[in-house]
Amino acid sequence: MTTTGAGPAAAPERPTVPEMHPQRWGDPARATALPEATAGLVELAFGHHETPAVADPRPPAPRLDPGLLDDLRAVVGEAHVLCDDATRRLRTRGKSTPDLLRARAGDLSDAPDAVVRPGDHDEVQAVLDWAVEHRVALVPFGGGTSVTGGLVARRDGLAGVVSLDLVRMKRLVALDPVSRTATLEPGLRGPEAEALLAAEGFTLGHFPQSFEFASIGGFAATRSSGQSSAGYGRFDAMVVGLTAATPRGRLDLGSSPANAAGPDLRQLLLGSEGALGVVTAVTVRVRPVPEEKAYEGWHWPSFEAGQTAMRTLAQAGQLPTVLRLSDEHETVLNLARPDAIGADGSEGADGDGAPGGGCLMITGYEGTPAAVARRRDEVTEVLTALGGRRLGTDPGEAWTHGRFDAPYLRDSMLDAGVLVETMETATFWSRVPALYAAVRAALVASLGEQAIVLCHVSHVYETGCSLYFTVAAPAGDAPLERWLAAKSAASDAMLDQGATITHHHAVGTDHKPWLAREVGPVGVELLRALKAAADPTGVLNPGVLVP
Amino acid sequence: MTTTGAGPAAAPERPTVPEMHPQRWGDPARATALPEATAGLVELAFGHHETPAVADPRPPAPRLDPGLLDDLRAVVGEAHVLCDDATRRLRTRGKSTPDLLRARAGDLSDAPDAVVRPGDHDEVQAVLDWAVEHRVALVPFGGGTSVTGGLVARRDGLAGVVSLDLVRMKRLVALDPVSRTATLEPGLRGPEAEALLAAEGFTLGHFPQSFEFASIGGFAATRSSGQSSAGYGRFDAMVVGLTAATPRGRLDLGSSPANAAGPDLRQLLLGSEGALGVVTAVTVRVRPVPEEKAYEGWHWPSFEAGQTAMRTLAQAGQLPTVLRLSDEHETVLNLARPDAIGADGSEGADGDGAPGGGCLMITGYEGTPAAVARRRDEVTEVLTALGGRRLGTDPGEAWTHGRFDAPYLRDSMLDAGVLVETMETATFWSRVPALYAAVRAALVASLGEQAIVLCHVSHVYETGCSLYFTVAAPAGDAPLERWLAAKSAASDAMLDQGATITHHHAVGTDHKPWLAREVGPVGVELLRALKAAADPTGVLNPGVLVP
Repeated sequence: MTTTGAGPAAAPERPTVPEMHPQRWGDPARATALPEATAGLVELAFGHHETPAVADPRPPAPRLDPGLLDDLRAVVGEAHVLCDDATRRLRTRGKSTPDLLRARAGDLSDAPDAVVRPGDHDEVQAVLDWAVEHRVALVPFGGGTSVTGGLVARRDGLAGVVSLDLVRMKRLVALDPVSRTATLEPGLRGPEAEALLAAEGFTLGHFPQSFEFASIGGFAATRSSGQSSAGYGRFDAMVVGLTAATPRGRLDLGSSPANAAGPDLRQLLLGSEGALGVVTAVTVRVRPVPEEKAYEGWHWPSFEAGQTAMRTLAQAGQLPTVLRLSDEHETVLNLARPDAIGADGSEGADGDGAPGGGCLMITGYEGTPAAVARRRDEVTEVLTALGGRRLGTDPGEAWTHGRFDAPYLRDSMLDAGVLVETMETATFWSRVPALYAAVRAALVASLGEQAIVLCHVSHVYETGCSLYFTVAAPAGDAPLERWLAAKSAASDAMLDQGATITHHHAVGTDHKPWLAREVGPVGVELLRALKAAADPTGVLNPGVLVP
Repeated sequence: MTTTGAGPAAAPERPTVPEMHPQRWGDPARATALPEATAGLVELAFGHHETPAVADPRPPAPRLDPGLLDDLRAVVGEAHVLCDDATRRLRTRGKSTPDLLRARAGDLSDAPDAVVRPGDHDEVQAVLDWAVEHRVALVPFGGGTSVTGGLVARRDGLAGVVSLDLVRMKRLVALDPVSRTATLEPGLRGPEAEALLAAEGFTLGHFPQSFEFASIGGFAATRSSGQSSAGYGRFDAMVVGLTAATPRGRLDLGSSPANAAGPDLRQLLLGSEGALGVVTAVTVRVRPVPEEKAYEGWHWPSFEAGQTAMRTLAQAGQLPTVLRLSDEHETVLNLARPDAIGADGSEGADGDGAPGGGCLMITGYEGTPAAVARRRDEVTEVLTALGGRRLGTDPGEAWTHGRFDAPYLRDSMLDAGVLVETMETATFWSRVPALYAAVRAALVASLGEQAIVLCHVSHVYETGCSLYFTVAAPAGDAPLERWLAAKSAASDAMLDQGATITHHHAVGTDHKPWLAREVGPVGVELLRALKAAADPTGVLNPGVLVP
């Protein structure tokens, strides 16, 4: 195997990933208020509310016997067992709207009793063994970006809760340029992994909206899917091998790209959300850093027409690297941003560049100049034949510019008393119209006619696609209850339509009841059996995933 | 959902799949002796031996209490519970060389006590419930083409063994032309499934060497991979949904093409070889029947140069539909057939069409004329730039002509006292040369310098490929022991190299010890837990898969 061990030497190249704000998404330095014009529009649409945040909330005192931590200190070192309020606060829950609302209200009741930071697989294994011995819940922590309650361990029957922070495990363990595989440690955040790979000429190509904070371990544990999934595939499709620490010992999988050696156990650990084991290394397929990137916009007369175009590309095997389609509602909102559609419509069929209603599609092409040109020509031919109107590169550039910013806006909107949250699902192509209508209807029925429901398709397959909804509604006096009711109604609608409860946000604690419906009682039995086998004492992220 | 129920109305269109010979591969009418010239060569190479077959062997008398079968007759009907010798003989074991040798020797000790033929999912479920109640082993039977001992149930602790013959479950249950999915019953043989789909304008594109006899259920249960996997993908990659009967009840999976709703339980049933449940329906991605098919040959100076070309195509995302590469040994043997390389070398770089040593590659293109032309041009450009020499269409046509015939030859060779068997593995690209050398060396060390070892690559991925070995050696006086020793040595070599024990032949009973090494003790625990959860009384194909 042609392998270069990169290791700590590469550390100076790593971008710095800041700690997230304990009550908001992202880099505290990038938190902003709504622009005045937007604030005015919001007040016009929803009236004036406020969802104030308690200043400097404190987590409850640790409930774990401090004597138990001494053994842990012997394993990972004094400096890596932390019990201070500030550290514990930063490891409390994820970033769903319920998480944010609870944190704003000063409720940090789910804070871990301690934060432990192992440095390698063996230290993770030792922490697991300690947790099993003392019946302490362990919550693996990567980027803290969960939006489905994946970081809320159940405490019942356990001595306490410890956050297993993977922040020290950030090595590029191996790179095989011939096979184009890289072995990465789980604590690497998206930008850190990309920087290490870029130094070797490669990219993972995985860019979910959480990219700036989310971790390699989290991508694997939640079956993440990124904005370039049309070209690079879902994260679970990139994984060819993985190592996990489990209470039963070490699990190493990945003899080959694919095989017939029984059930694919890699596909059990992928999506297991820390409930079956802690992923300590992931071997992923990588690709050369693209020499060229080009993004552009297309206009479609309707959401349905745009979907037909996406389906045609997917079924012809002619997908661009990025392929997204906003529904009419989301398109209108995008267009409210002056940079969303370029003034230069010279590439458009009718030369005026104006969208004239309808739907905006973004197509992106990455690769060698020849590959970009070839695929772009193919796609352009197909989309033009289907009635699409090319809008030039400005909408594409506008999208790439703001692609990781939406979660910051969510907090600014919450400041102004507006709930903004997303939810996503997937189904087969023929069922998309009914699913779209049912989820929209459920959200509007729950939140009222005032609610704004936007949708886009951002992940496509030969047989179907995802639907990603963004919802905005007045927070009202009981925003948490209001949102949970809406979420529940929309989730019921998804399952009623035979669709999945989540295309790429995982199960966590929030989606468990619907997962049980999705896989049925026998599926639940299989999950329970796996949990009991891998984690007999139930210390691994208890409460998530397994119904 | 746009669905057409096809059902029994389509039955008249089905091709007839004959019952296989109880001691040989395939249609008894197609059994042939070796051509005289070949027989002469074989005698020259290996000397004269004979491996005679016992005429008309009889299975042992049924050991199951016949009274127990009355309940079964009430479920599936009198006509579908069979205990006669002829029927039981045809459901005894699969078609590995050990299976053939034992059958030739008159050893039918693994014959089932009865054969039961349920007509639909509910009848399968009722048979399972009966088996659980009476502790009877059930061996699902599709095409009977297993080459890894997948049809050899353990009897210990059980009242008997019943073959669960899926021969009556041959419906196209649903077809969704928009999503391009088809729901098929498990008893459909390859040609039957293709005929039903072709009537609707679609194809599965799954053509393993066992295609003429193997079944849809078997493809799913063994993670089959076909000769067109470069274009159509492995069977497990085609599956978007499945239904299984388990002793715990019905399991329905497949809400969406892909999702983040926990571990992918579909990937547990795929490759489960009847040990976790009986697959009663599979929903697969289908594609339009290709308007055009074109196959051609390429010459490479070495196996390594050809592999580099395959890797380049796979990593550039420019794979043809079929891509195969024979090593120097297999190429020589292919060339011994006069139709293998065409006399017309006009398309070759040097115009003489002669291979001049080196390796033969087959490339195949299927799709619309435009898609075939486009991909063919792309591939031709890449292969030419890498030093490949185009040999025209004759080698391609020769390959398509004989692609399902090799197993017949194996029996003819056995008649002449020559063991011919295949084994296959997969690894990452950078490890291929070492794996190839190690398996070859192990086989020659075990079987002697006289042994002929051929190899080809027929399944490629971005990160790696399969290696498929064909071995010929004098059968000698103890052919079974001789082969088992060679197989064991080659299997050890695969695992020593970190490769998989099987790329597409499944685990069965034969590969179990190596599966245990491949997934390690924690992997084995997970498999055992799944087995215990799905099949607590252990009646489902006991002895296969789970170490």
